[in-house]
Amino acid sequence: MTDLSTVKAALKAQSIETPSWAYGNSGTRFKVFAQAGVPRTPQEKIDDAARVHEFTAAAPSVALHIPWDRTDDYPALAAHAAGQGVRLGVINSNVFQDDDYKLGSVTHPDPKIRRKATDHLLECVDIMDATGSRDLKLWFSDGTNYPGQDDIADRQGRLGDALAEVYERLGDDQRMLLEYKLFEPAFYATDVPDWGTAYAHCLKLGPKAQVVVDTGHHAPGTNIEFIVATLLREGKLGGFDFNSRFYADDDLMAGAADPFQLFRIMYEVVRGGGLAAETGVAFMLDQCHNIEAKIPAIIRSVMNVQEATAKALLVDPVALRAAQQAGEVLEANAVLMDAYNTDVRPLLREVREEQGIDPDPIAAYKRSGWADHIVAERVGGTQAGWGA
Amino acid sequence: MTDLSTVKAALKAQSIETPSWAYGNSGTRFKVFAQAGVPRTPQEKIDDAARVHEFTAAAPSVALHIPWDRTDDYPALAAHAAGQGVRLGVINSNVFQDDDYKLGSVTHPDPKIRRKATDHLLECVDIMDATGSRDLKLWFSDGTNYPGQDDIADRQGRLGDALAEVYERLGDDQRMLLEYKLFEPAFYATDVPDWGTAYAHCLKLGPKAQVVVDTGHHAPGTNIEFIVATLLREGKLGGFDFNSRFYADDDLMAGAADPFQLFRIMYEVVRGGGLAAETGVAFMLDQCHNIEAKIPAIIRSVMNVQEATAKALLVDPVALRAAQQAGEVLEANAVLMDAYNTDVRPLLREVREEQGIDPDPIAAYKRSGWADHIVAERVGGTQAGWGA
Amino acid sequence: MTDLSTVKAALKAQSIETPSWAYGNSGTRFKVFAQAGVPRTPQEKIDDAARVHEFTAAAPSVALHIPWDRTDDYPALAAHAAGQGVRLGVINSNVFQDDDYKLGSVTHPDPKIRRKATDHLLECVDIMDATGSRDLKLWFSDGTNYPGQDDIADRQGRLGDALAEVYERLGDDQRMLLEYKLFEPAFYATDVPDWGTAYAHCLKLGPKAQVVVDTGHHAPGTNIEFIVATLLREGKLGGFDFNSRFYADDDLMAGAADPFQLFRIMYEVVRGGGLAAETGVAFMLDQCHNIEAKIPAIIRSVMNVQEATAKALLVDPVALRAAQQAGEVLEANAVLMDAYNTDVRPLLREVREEQGIDPDPIAAYKRSGWADHIVAERVGGTQAGWGA
Amino acid sequence: MTDLSTVKAALKAQSIETPSWAYGNSGTRFKVFAQAGVPRTPQEKIDDAARVHEFTAAAPSVALHIPWDRTDDYPALAAHAAGQGVRLGVINSNVFQDDDYKLGSVTHPDPKIRRKATDHLLECVDIMDATGSRDLKLWFSDGTNYPGQDDIADRQGRLGDALAEVYERLGDDQRMLLEYKLFEPAFYATDVPDWGTAYAHCLKLGPKAQVVVDTGHHAPGTNIEFIVATLLREGKLGGFDFNSRFYADDDLMAGAADPFQLFRIMYEVVRGGGLAAETGVAFMLDQCHNIEAKIPAIIRSVMNVQEATAKALLVDPVALRAAQQAGEVLEANAVLMDAYNTDVRPLLREVREEQGIDPDPIAAYKRSGWADHIVAERVGGTQAGWGA
Repeated sequence: MTDLSTVKAALKAQSIETPSWAYGNSGTRFKVFAQAGVPRTPQEKIDDAARVHEFTAAAPSVALHIPWDRTDDYPALAAHAAGQGVRLGVINSNVFQDDDYKLGSVTHPDPKIRRKATDHLLECVDIMDATGSRDLKLWFSDGTNYPGQDDIADRQGRLGDALAEVYERLGDDQRMLLEYKLFEPAFYATDVPDWGTAYAHCLKLGPKAQVVVDTGHHAPGTNIEFIVATLLREGKLGGFDFNSRFYADDDLMAGAADPFQLFRIMYEVVRGGGLAAETGVAFMLDQCHNIEAKIPAIIRSVMNVQEATAKALLVDPVALRAAQQAGEVLEANAVLMDAYNTDVRPLLREVREEQGIDPDPIAAYKRSGWADHIVAERVGGTQAGWGA
Repeated sequence: MTDLSTVKAALKAQSIETPSWAYGNSGTRFKVFAQAGVPRTPQEKIDDAARVHEFTAAAPSVALHIPWDRTDDYPALAAHAAGQGVRLGVINSNVFQDDDYKLGSVTHPDPKIRRKATDHLLECVDIMDATGSRDLKLWFSDGTNYPGQDDIADRQGRLGDALAEVYERLGDDQRMLLEYKLFEPAFYATDVPDWGTAYAHCLKLGPKAQVVVDTGHHAPGTNIEFIVATLLREGKLGGFDFNSRFYADDDLMAGAADPFQLFRIMYEVVRGGGLAAETGVAFMLDQCHNIEAKIPAIIRSVMNVQEATAKALLVDPVALRAAQQAGEVLEANAVLMDAYNTDVRPLLREVREEQGIDPDPIAAYKRSGWADHIVAERVGGTQAGWGA
Repeated sequence: MTDLSTVKAALKAQSIETPSWAYGNSGTRFKVFAQAGVPRTPQEKIDDAARVHEFTAAAPSVALHIPWDRTDDYPALAAHAAGQGVRLGVINSNVFQDDDYKLGSVTHPDPKIRRKATDHLLECVDIMDATGSRDLKLWFSDGTNYPGQDDIADRQGRLGDALAEVYERLGDDQRMLLEYKLFEPAFYATDVPDWGTAYAHCLKLGPKAQVVVDTGHHAPGTNIEFIVATLLREGKLGGFDFNSRFYADDDLMAGAADPFQLFRIMYEVVRGGGLAAETGVAFMLDQCHNIEAKIPAIIRSVMNVQEATAKALLVDPVALRAAQQAGEVLEANAVLMDAYNTDVRPLLREVREEQGIDPDPIAAYKRSGWADHIVAERVGGTQAGWGA
Repeated sequence: MTDLSTVKAALKAQSIETPSWAYGNSGTRFKVFAQAGVPRTPQEKIDDAARVHEFTAAAPSVALHIPWDRTDDYPALAAHAAGQGVRLGVINSNVFQDDDYKLGSVTHPDPKIRRKATDHLLECVDIMDATGSRDLKLWFSDGTNYPGQDDIADRQGRLGDALAEVYERLGDDQRMLLEYKLFEPAFYATDVPDWGTAYAHCLKLGPKAQVVVDTGHHAPGTNIEFIVATLLREGKLGGFDFNSRFYADDDLMAGAADPFQLFRIMYEVVRGGGLAAETGVAFMLDQCHNIEAKIPAIIRSVMNVQEATAKALLVDPVALRAAQQAGEVLEANAVLMDAYNTDVRPLLREVREEQGIDPDPIAAYKRSGWADHIVAERVGGTQAGWGA
């Protein structure tokens, strides 16, 4: 039997980092629909992220994306965040939007382009020093669109060289999180397409290199929780970029497309000890709110991760283990499903009340007037977006 | 045994329409890499398309996209095309880039937005009258991103109403080509997601409504040639948007990702009589050349369709039928593969020489100096793109 | 606000038919693991099915599979069922296990084989007359493994001919349910691969021909509830073969792999009026319990369908419609999710108590001793299976 | 420019191992269609395999499958093979057909079952000693069908223990080839589902453990040649199980479904030096000829691999590298496509004539009378099959 106070304590301890770029405009290649009230500056993104934390008590940090959030005074940005009740989180590099990167960044055939890209990654570590961020998250759009376009094996070599150089630059308490993605924007061969490739590189680099799992970056049918369990077991799970998808990298709200999958993932995290702070597993969102209001969508996503976590924590480990050991297929499945089928929203309301916040974050946000405030205040200037 | 002069005649008769937008910039949500020399105007797109026809003798028409190619004098545009040796082709509507269409166009819950969208479609028929275009191609990005967002069945009703109104407006020699697409930009439920939906609507509308098959718009594993054979048999195959994909709607060059699939598709076209002009099957490209030079990529795509067609024409129908009737699996497959494994490039070189053009279109284009010419001439102004 | 008594009434009225073959042995091409106590005869299958109904009050009929359940006295079989408290349901034809059908049944290139296959289908209608079954369910394994093996369009013609002949044979109150499947056992081109093909045939045949949706028979990423909504709107949804899958046609317990999908499907059924008896939508299971105990797995599956139905019935249609009409994406989605996140197990326990059965069907079945009984009694003879 | 004599030499040096089980009956869970003339004994399988080698000069070895090919005198079996002009190849273990393995073999929760399974693997090494086989190929059907059924991480631990024990038993010149597969027969979580898992285990085991790539064992959209290039670069590519698929693990003839993919795979093999004997890359077939005649299907598969290899060898490495280095996307792709579009059948006919065999293996096999011979001779007894 699971102890409810332990469950509550675990839920209170869980932090879910929100990404600065999710507060800005986003869309597809067909259209970016701008929304009124969207931030114009990193500071305004942080202000929005602070509202998510204010109403959930679960999102105390904001991930930055360089150059989208570049500033000439990171300590001031960190102070701004602190003033809002949040802190700066993971630094995300961007080596996919400069014209030079048309054929790749750290895997480009031209060493000058590779140098430029690696220098950007090193700059990101400088920024980490300035912001106090622990983690550098690396996602590479590198890849090829046509068979023969470039040499697959050579590109792995170039990638390995760049990663090694950046790894050397990391401080003692800093980590490199390497993200993989099946496709998009590369449409033939992506240079880090799967967890195996990311794992192989991280293994060579050393303990400060870890794999990050973006839940939208897999081939159809991939069992993501298997990857999570395996990486945790190998000590190589650096964290998650949560979002959800029906088709490709749809970047919908976490838990919106397949809440059962999110539960299964969180179960493996709980099972593998990944909720413990010392494992360093980072829970992050990476989403695009193309047509829905951004702040409440992010609040909903945080709540969805919490609900999945709560259900995972409710799985009775003793009963489950007993049924598994006895080879009782239906009974073991039933133990898991019993937790999944539980409505954990009352429990989470209790947790929030114990944390001193409104039990209904969405309603509280709506009542706060922030949505109207930003529409009224954020007039003029250039709205933040992906800059594509 | 297939008669070679018949094959050559069929190849000379095949026309492949190129899309005006493929000459402009395109990209992904991550980045549009602009290319030097890209057209600024519909006229310049037509000029580029004319080069493709000049060097292939197989691409005599250019599809327009409204509003990207909107002009206040379509007869003048048609005259410009004629002056370049090509003609205006299919009119493609666009009801996905106006801010009003965030939640749909003809399926939007708000009747005012639906009215606006339908009016645009009707305007496209006006343009067809002005350009002499036979076909209106309809692709709707309409759909929803989240379960519950809107009512799936109601949206079908709204779609049917709009299609019926536009159908009524068509002239006697005009057609409506309805395109389907599994996903993107809608990530939960697309309103015309598959050939069945498009077919059901076209059947209700009448003989001037036909289905168009975009080879990149299917779920993984879909047997596209089965759809082609079925639609041809039902008299409902309006045409193709050719491109190729490894993953989703990658919009790579036709024949680049799976040349055997393109051959199988063209075999079903040949088998079903779809090369005959009277069937009205339109062969069109719909591609994005995000990282490669656009004009030679389109020339290559036209050549790839020609090569697939040539191989399809080389299939020995008598031997194939005999093996099929006898239930000889390996022999029947071998007849098909024998044609596919044939190198038809010498045959196509002969065809081109008989048509009075250079047997090597890519080399001829390179020698023509057009690439340098457009880079030098097209300076300033706004390059054409998707306008997203 | 949804009225709870209406919800309960709808749940009590819902019947879920279980398939006779699910009580027998099944497996993969790699291995069929026999289970102790498995039925040897159609009568014993019916006995097991009666236990499912006894403990769920929701599974009053059993589908038969011919020739697996062939008998020389169908009235006696029907009487046996009645004696057990259940009735005979849909008749499933089988034209895939005779050696003659290696290259197809009704689509075979040889007219003698087609004749034999069609005769079997006609025999199934005779059996329907004898059993009083309303529905003939047709699934064809027909297709080809290699490109060129047979003519895709010709096979459609042969299929249409056979269907028309069987349709003519149907009585006034009998229906033909045509099932589609993407692949397996055909690995290149299946002759009824998707709902569009089944729909096109049913439309030509007439009102007694309807499409049946097997939830495991789609390409990855297919939005099944869209198909359900569309077929219901067109009056062509004959029913469901429920099961669940992570990869292909895995035939796992309904609701086991993606309970949210099952809920979305049932929501579209409710929304489209498909729970009403007059629409004739048949709710059937079609599953394989390869490694788990069969009877409790089927009880669990029935309960899973009930839970999905209960959640679908709890969706507040007024609130949903209001949010949809207002274009409030998050609010509309939240209405749906609120129902999905509700734990409906207490409600279903109440329903069962009101029906006079144990609120916990699994526990009641375990206590009943039936599992031990059949292991002890069913010794010797040949266990039922697929006969492959 | 590629030197033709080098190409020919490489083609003559390539050996493709055929699997004993492909000569026996196979099918799907729906039906196994027996074929006349199918072998009844390992000796007869070897006789058939010898015909494939006789007519292709490219298939000098036969893989065995234990227990399907179990005998009490392996030296005699090896002598029989030698007498037929072939030799015994890889030993394939089978821990999926015993009733004990319903819930797993080396990953089973019960240590007694794990012991039994590991003992079988050790027995296979004994057989390797007796046959002189170099490689032990391990494919595990192990996995779970339902979430919660067993502990994912624990199963990895059990798997690792068993592999380590078998690894220790290997002789100095023996290898362990670990195969991965996405799904089937496990439908939720397969224990070795992807190359990353296989790679991680092989890395821990040591240099005698290598990954084997079955071309039908991936998720839709997986870029197999990327995996091949990566494993080759890491020195961990043990070999291939060739076959082809449109959907899942269809096990069709190699090159039948996507000949361009097979070419791209072989290009990466050539590029990575994998044709050289010292790399130890084993080229094997693993196919099911469910509806087509088996021996000619295997001959055709061998020829398809040869044709893909020939095309890969024809890629001009200097021109390709130059275009890649220059970032010329279309030119680089064109170099690859030029080789692919070449009809290499005349070249292979020359190679065969130089090897002293008929240039047309299929025709020669047909003329040989072997097909009639085995139908006439192999009467009575039990045909070989999978024994499922």
